[in-house]
Amino acid sequence: MKIALLVAYDGTSFNGFARQPQGRTVQGLLEANLSLFLRTAVRTTGAGRTDAGVHAAGQVVSFEAPAGTDPARLRDRLNRRLAPEISVRAAAAVPAPFDARHSARKRVYEYLLYGSPTPDPFLDRFAVWSAGELNVAAMRRAARALIGEHDFSSFCRRGEGSMVRRVRSITIKPSGHRLVVRIVADSFCHQMVRSIVGLLLEVGRGKRAPEDAGRALKAKNRAAAGPVAPAKGLTLVEVGYPRRPFPFAE
Amino acid sequence: MKIALLVAYDGTSFNGFARQPQGRTVQGLLEANLSLFLRTAVRTTGAGRTDAGVHAAGQVVSFEAPAGTDPARLRDRLNRRLAPEISVRAAAAVPAPFDARHSARKRVYEYLLYGSPTPDPFLDRFAVWSAGELNVAAMRRAARALIGEHDFSSFCRRGEGSMVRRVRSITIKPSGHRLVVRIVADSFCHQMVRSIVGLLLEVGRGKRAPEDAGRALKAKNRAAAGPVAPAKGLTLVEVGYPRRPFPFAE
Repeated sequence: MKIALLVAYDGTSFNGFARQPQGRTVQGLLEANLSLFLRTAVRTTGAGRTDAGVHAAGQVVSFEAPAGTDPARLRDRLNRRLAPEISVRAAAAVPAPFDARHSARKRVYEYLLYGSPTPDPFLDRFAVWSAGELNVAAMRRAARALIGEHDFSSFCRRGEGSMVRRVRSITIKPSGHRLVVRIVADSFCHQMVRSIVGLLLEVGRGKRAPEDAGRALKAKNRAAAGPVAPAKGLTLVEVGYPRRPFPFAE
Repeated sequence: MKIALLVAYDGTSFNGFARQPQGRTVQGLLEANLSLFLRTAVRTTGAGRTDAGVHAAGQVVSFEAPAGTDPARLRDRLNRRLAPEISVRAAAAVPAPFDARHSARKRVYEYLLYGSPTPDPFLDRFAVWSAGELNVAAMRRAARALIGEHDFSSFCRRGEGSMVRRVRSITIKPSGHRLVVRIVADSFCHQMVRSIVGLLLEVGRGKRAPEDAGRALKAKNRAAAGPVAPAKGLTLVEVGYPRRPFPFAE
């Protein structure tokens, strides 16, 4: 049977989501514990390969499990071992063809910035402190150039395969001294969100013009986009599927 | 000259606020850096001696500094070294008789609980997960017995001096799946807040009757109060003085 997990994690102490021969990863920890509980080698697929230091509120992970496995019991056992650093918010049996990565139709990431006079110990683990005002109108103008289907080579770290992606929306929402940049796309190439946010931040600080976003896109050259925003401000908040795998969780 | 600091910290990795011969403490780190910057041995006083694992959003610390010290520059230098784990939110020159501890007229602590179906990686560092519903009405009835001036021996860990304290208010405020217990008193004895919250939690879970709060108070016996709530849910949010030392910060 196929099982899907809805997973949240604090990425601070992980070498990213994807399993590695060495290094502590979210997928590695999940697979080690699933293999132990299910008494068979379990290999999982994740909807988003989040970088080291990036967090998730709604990562989705799928895997093949022995027939008769109880998803709810598995969720509770995993949480007893891994929560709160990794919390399994829901577990559900899904149709056999379901694959957390390939069945996904959209990914939603949020980047959190805050602008208090001094760094805030209660926010700083999941957000990036940015002293000084940001020009939100300019950031929105820059973001507009990135909406739609484009070759995002300038915003992608790795060069394998097509870098054409479809960005559905970028919203920039101030709330008190916080600013949330929310980016929705069918899928993202490597470091694309942090690269987009990095450019938007330079625009917000007046270091670059809003028009530079469109120019960077056309350049198809990594150097045109500018610095990548720090990992710790980024969270994978939601993955969308044609049919929701977790009817009661979200 | 006398200087006061308004300090926030994430208490997770500290052996509490108060300096110790061994052990990493908030006061120890502040004093080491102040002594370095001011080129003289600096001894500080803190308004609340928070336990290991307890956080602060509004701790107040005072100390004697060489004449001509610039408080704002000192704040910035401390933040460059210590933020965001310890953030100095404000620094101000204060009248010579000011003492962060002895001049304080009230302390405000908040205890944060949350009741989502699974532990939340984004909240859990500063809050305590409590699965299942809490009976807020029963908790409020129990809290009422503790308001006013009482001998809090049953709720105090250490036995030196008077355990008479005046609790001004206890408010229990649900907000979504969160619950904030806010306790205001002139001052607190050691582990008093966590001891009060521990009892309120047992009442909220139906393990003890609301009347047990008044009974525990009368018993003047540590065993009557019950378990101490975990440190990580507790934050010193505010210290009150006859005149605010930080006119622009709060």
